[in-house]
Amino acid sequence: MRTIDWVDGAIELIDQTLLPDELVMLRITTVDALIEAIQRLAVRGAPALGVAGAFGVALADGDRKAIARLREARPTAVNLAWGVDQAAAHLEEGRQAVLARAERLRDEDIAACVAMGGRGADLIEGDSLRVMTICNTGALAAVERGTALGVIQTLHERGRLAEVLALETRPLLQGARLTAWELDRMGAPYRLIADSAGPSLLARGGIDAVLIGADRIAANGDTANKVGSYSLALGAERAGVPFFVVAPETTIDLSTPSGEHIEIEDRAEEEIVSVRGVRLAPAGTRALNPAFDVTPHDLITAIVTDRRVFRP
Amino acid sequence: MRTIDWVDGAIELIDQTLLPDELVMLRITTVDALIEAIQRLAVRGAPALGVAGAFGVALADGDRKAIARLREARPTAVNLAWGVDQAAAHLEEGRQAVLARAERLRDEDIAACVAMGGRGADLIEGDSLRVMTICNTGALAAVERGTALGVIQTLHERGRLAEVLALETRPLLQGARLTAWELDRMGAPYRLIADSAGPSLLARGGIDAVLIGADRIAANGDTANKVGSYSLALGAERAGVPFFVVAPETTIDLSTPSGEHIEIEDRAEEEIVSVRGVRLAPAGTRALNPAFDVTPHDLITAIVTDRRVFRP
Repeated sequence: MRTIDWVDGAIELIDQTLLPDELVMLRITTVDALIEAIQRLAVRGAPALGVAGAFGVALADGDRKAIARLREARPTAVNLAWGVDQAAAHLEEGRQAVLARAERLRDEDIAACVAMGGRGADLIEGDSLRVMTICNTGALAAVERGTALGVIQTLHERGRLAEVLALETRPLLQGARLTAWELDRMGAPYRLIADSAGPSLLARGGIDAVLIGADRIAANGDTANKVGSYSLALGAERAGVPFFVVAPETTIDLSTPSGEHIEIEDRAEEEIVSVRGVRLAPAGTRALNPAFDVTPHDLITAIVTDRRVFRP
Repeated sequence: MRTIDWVDGAIELIDQTLLPDELVMLRITTVDALIEAIQRLAVRGAPALGVAGAFGVALADGDRKAIARLREARPTAVNLAWGVDQAAAHLEEGRQAVLARAERLRDEDIAACVAMGGRGADLIEGDSLRVMTICNTGALAAVERGTALGVIQTLHERGRLAEVLALETRPLLQGARLTAWELDRMGAPYRLIADSAGPSLLARGGIDAVLIGADRIAANGDTANKVGSYSLALGAERAGVPFFVVAPETTIDLSTPSGEHIEIEDRAEEEIVSVRGVRLAPAGTRALNPAFDVTPHDLITAIVTDRRVFRP
């Protein structure tokens, strides 16, 4: 099963808002429906958004306004715009050429995740590893296997994984809902923790590595990822635990010189004042909801891509 | 209205598990009922637990086994054991003497909170202040006014407060449920944020101070407080924002030399895998739920007590 694919003339993708309760495939036939799915996070994760963007161009039938709206559907992830651009470069050759590029991009993503998994697993030393991760960076964030969680899956397949501590990842709980679901399916041992417990559990000791994905990596290595990544990086630095960013090469945006130039998406206040339809705070409570944060490059031990490992 | 008081031969306290939806006063007449209320967090907050412990001894009618159980009802907060000990020292003089000590302790707590509020507000420089806080440290955590939130209330009364950024405080959402409710009642401007957004919003700039309470302060100044406090301290240090601990002198435990000797309460896994009765993670998901963390003294700008301000 793939998180997103092209099937019989339409995009099919898992509606991630319904997990872990229900596994439902959506069939998407218009750009507007795809934009809606992206904005309500039915499909999310930087690599998956790249593939969604490319397939979306095939749905657009040459409508350049629709393609421009799709390209801007979420501002922080560079992969969405990149995927759109890759497919749109073939617009003048016709729909078949666009679709062929999108399908190649899907296949490249699958291969990139395999490569990152192996490279990351090779990089981390030791056995009986206990690792910490945030958000969801697994198969659900890509087409198959994923980025940071793909490394964890590779460690598990190689018999080197003792336990994953997965941050629940408020407000939308991608850790509790999606990463837990994926770890469960792969049979890997894990426990869920509150996001704010991450740094103090790193201080407590016994964690071998922190692994995160990325939504955009600036030219200097500053990395935008799910809000909470930065506090894990601070905690890892203080505890002397290696902190790895795992992302395809396409997540690196050389046109963004440093983190301060990355636009951070502020999402709806409602995501903070309620959880899965249950109100948490008094009526009328206002909220501030930055969906991402920026980890400065000096806190990153190494960035693992499908092509290389480098220290920013 | 007081959070906890002695009324007509029994303890009356606000059932904080029902806030912000309902304001219900519980009437507690036995030590067992008090222990149950403490363990399910109907009453919480270090100063309030001290007063609860003292009044609880008056309920015990000299039953030393019950008093010992009460003293250990929650391990991290030193104030509970301290309050119990203060009242129990008068057991041989009879119930009236115990009650008189408990009532004096209540009055001392009210006075201490007024003193901390003034001292803390004097310490922070500037006007139009934007401050960040975690958990609930207001009237609901004490008898009246509270510790860190008492400082914030004093700033508001003095016209020096522009905005509070309140962390929601997973897993039990004391920030979203209780601090938001108190800030709303005092008419102070505030927004709620996800816990993991705290450090990155400090990095973004414009925050003048972080203010937290304390459950136990070791002799060297290491401070146990609600999980998430440590990551705020890391974020404040990196951003150059002053980080203040506000707690009555009784929270300082000279018999604990440093933070590594503080017992951290691990609470039920259920608190992580669900929110207010709604399941978040797949069935069977395990969790690790440390309720507190320890902020090392070198990350603390100053500790504000009812008697002094000092840098640990």
